Amino acid sequence: MWRASIFTLFPEMFPGPLGLSLAGDALKRNVWRLEAIDIRAHGLGRHRSVDDTPAGGGAGMVMRADVLAASLDAALEPDDPRPRLLMSPRGKPLTQARAREFAEAPGVAIVCGRFEGVDERVIAARRLEEVSIGDYVLSGGELAALVLLDAAVRLLPGVMGKEESGAEESFENGLLEYPHYTKPRVFEGHQIPDVLLSGDHAKIAAWREAEARALTAARRPDLLKPKARKS
Amino acid sequence: MWRASIFTLFPEMFPGPLGLSLAGDALKRNVWRLEAIDIRAHGLGRHRSVDDTPAGGGAGMVMRADVLAASLDAALEPDDPRPRLLMSPRGKPLTQARAREFAEAPGVAIVCGRFEGVDERVIAARRLEEVSIGDYVLSGGELAALVLLDAAVRLLPGVMGKEESGAEESFENGLLEYPHYTKPRVFEGHQIPDVLLSGDHAKIAAWREAEARALTAARRPDLLKPKARKS
Repeated sequence: MWRASIFTLFPEMFPGPLGLSLAGDALKRNVWRLEAIDIRAHGLGRHRSVDDTPAGGGAGMVMRADVLAASLDAALEPDDPRPRLLMSPRGKPLTQARAREFAEAPGVAIVCGRFEGVDERVIAARRLEEVSIGDYVLSGGELAALVLLDAAVRLLPGVMGKEESGAEESFENGLLEYPHYTKPRVFEGHQIPDVLLSGDHAKIAAWREAEARALTAARRPDLLKPKARKS
Repeated sequence: MWRASIFTLFPEMFPGPLGLSLAGDALKRNVWRLEAIDIRAHGLGRHRSVDDTPAGGGAGMVMRADVLAASLDAALEPDDPRPRLLMSPRGKPLTQARAREFAEAPGVAIVCGRFEGVDERVIAARRLEEVSIGDYVLSGGELAALVLLDAAVRLLPGVMGKEESGAEESFENGLLEYPHYTKPRVFEGHQIPDVLLSGDHAKIAAWREAEARALTAARRPDLLKPKARKS
């Protein structure tokens, strides 16, 4: 069974939205398992403190290396084969290919950052891989972890039914998806494009490919450029 | 008051994680308001059907234009000044600058896609702006909407306290954030870098800037390149 262990100061945020819909059904059917671990259980002193002011000054609070290390060490066996991730805007951007890799792993262990950041020494000492879901800042890593889990879990065998498909989606072929139409045939005077009603499968496939290409060129030319141009 | 209206087939996913922590406190203090609107209330027939098979064939189901239009028209005044967004992997990627624009607007109206996609004609007819939170596929737009809301709400006046700062974060100056350290001074034999304990503020600022630049160059050289190079 695919296992997710989430290290967080807000264990009550899990499974949250993943308790419903596709991921929630799969959770109930034991296709995957989710465990939310409260980092504060290893906090220091009467107040179970987990953070302190940044060395060198500045705004915000930094999560302590010793507290997070204790939490990780108590919950994970040394030979746990799962990737250990830290959700952080400093990380490598999540992609569909990476989501597929996570789905093919035995599961994931994810640390959700809070405050200004996490002490760099625990990131290095516990070899946490920083992963970003996009170029924006969230109030914590919890929503980012939920996004990563959803992207991976829907790719697990037995999660998507026929209705959800998964093969012809955005990014799976390097292009944004072509436009979709369904009933009614006329909506506020606008018809479904004739080609889609022609029954000519080759023509339909060619039209969709051309539309996907045009949309990608207009909105995301970066996806069409050759990758990994290093100067 | 900043208002978010979310059109979804899973209204029970809201506020979800945003009911806690920073965004949840602000919700309780009426800094912002969240309304989740069930698209299925405008579904057709006894089963309140909202989707149908794609014109031209293929896997998956497509959300009907007439149903979504009816849901939008019932909930939004024609002169509602808020941006109307559709969370979709085909959209323009969300950035920190865009999150700041949303925070400066009177609020947002967000449609959460499900199934294979949404009929193209309602996207055009109701001028929905497609927004993507990253290059991966989710089982629906709900988590993406929660991410967008969190990114925007934390920037509203009165949401972040002194403790959370916000000025020196990743992306705000075009760089990934420098490494953070806090107590203890020695963690598993690793010291906090001397410069951070020197008390020399100019030296500390220079070190942080150099670290941020080196990290960005190593992990995200794309952020350092001049923008909008169109050929």
